[in-house]
Amino acid sequence: MKWLETDTRNCPVHRTLDLVGEKWSLLILRDAFNGVRRYDDFRRHIGLSEAVLADRLRKLVAAGVLRAVPYREPGSRTRNEYRLTPKGVDLWPVLLALKQWGDAHTGDPDDPAGPALDVHHTACGSPVQVVVRCTGEDAELLTAREVTATPGPGARAAT
Amino acid sequence: MKWLETDTRNCPVHRTLDLVGEKWSLLILRDAFNGVRRYDDFRRHIGLSEAVLADRLRKLVAAGVLRAVPYREPGSRTRNEYRLTPKGVDLWPVLLALKQWGDAHTGDPDDPAGPALDVHHTACGSPVQVVVRCTGEDAELLTAREVTATPGPGARAAT
Repeated sequence: MKWLETDTRNCPVHRTLDLVGEKWSLLILRDAFNGVRRYDDFRRHIGLSEAVLADRLRKLVAAGVLRAVPYREPGSRTRNEYRLTPKGVDLWPVLLALKQWGDAHTGDPDDPAGPALDVHHTACGSPVQVVVRCTGEDAELLTAREVTATPGPGARAAT
Repeated sequence: MKWLETDTRNCPVHRTLDLVGEKWSLLILRDAFNGVRRYDDFRRHIGLSEAVLADRLRKLVAAGVLRAVPYREPGSRTRNEYRLTPKGVDLWPVLLALKQWGDAHTGDPDDPAGPALDVHHTACGSPVQVVVRCTGEDAELLTAREVTATPGPGARAAT
């Protein structure tokens, strides 16, 4: 089977995008990785309408990447915080890869101030990096030219 | 400055998503990484309307991640192929990270056939892997818990 003959709806990229691949969803997750948990904080920081934020939070909880945890401040009603689940934490390389590309390619040449977010290894202070590597013994770093992609065991023919 | 006080529109993740962070745009790029170049092939494989495909191709060319290259088959008018630019090729870790998460978390438990796409190191046949690592001397692999994110030199205060 060739790539063009495969059913694209069965593709893991397609399925991932159906769950979390919407701009506001990804920005909510970005904020969650930066410690944001509360509805009003997401709304104010990302600049979302209540309707869009409520919809995206509901979808992210349904997808199992965020979980709602009730909390109550004195004198207020019970509200929900939104925390990353382990499945959500696994999206970390996606967010970092988006950041890395943005740092490399979307900077303002008239305002070369550097990254808006500095992500570094806590233990040593060095910046972190997303790389693609071989799972073989030498763990070689790879470029797109050094790999081959073929339909795998789960590929289905397009109908 | 704390994260919640930063201007989110200046964030590299936000800027990246504004350029390429739309489901059909990312699926077009996925196909481009799998060797698809022609309008009709994108349209048929992804199942897009002409209007959506033309719009997304135009935006991806404007963003500098695809370039249009004219070709002409005997008896036909000149058409464009769409090829990844070096800037587009740099999105490879983003696409692979989406695939990796999809393989881990979106499989059908009733149909455990394995990945629909098998991406391996051409030289040795081992699967490839997206990882986050320290840029320090030991190049340690890192989890989200081992890093610290702070507003960087390009951070701006929210208005």
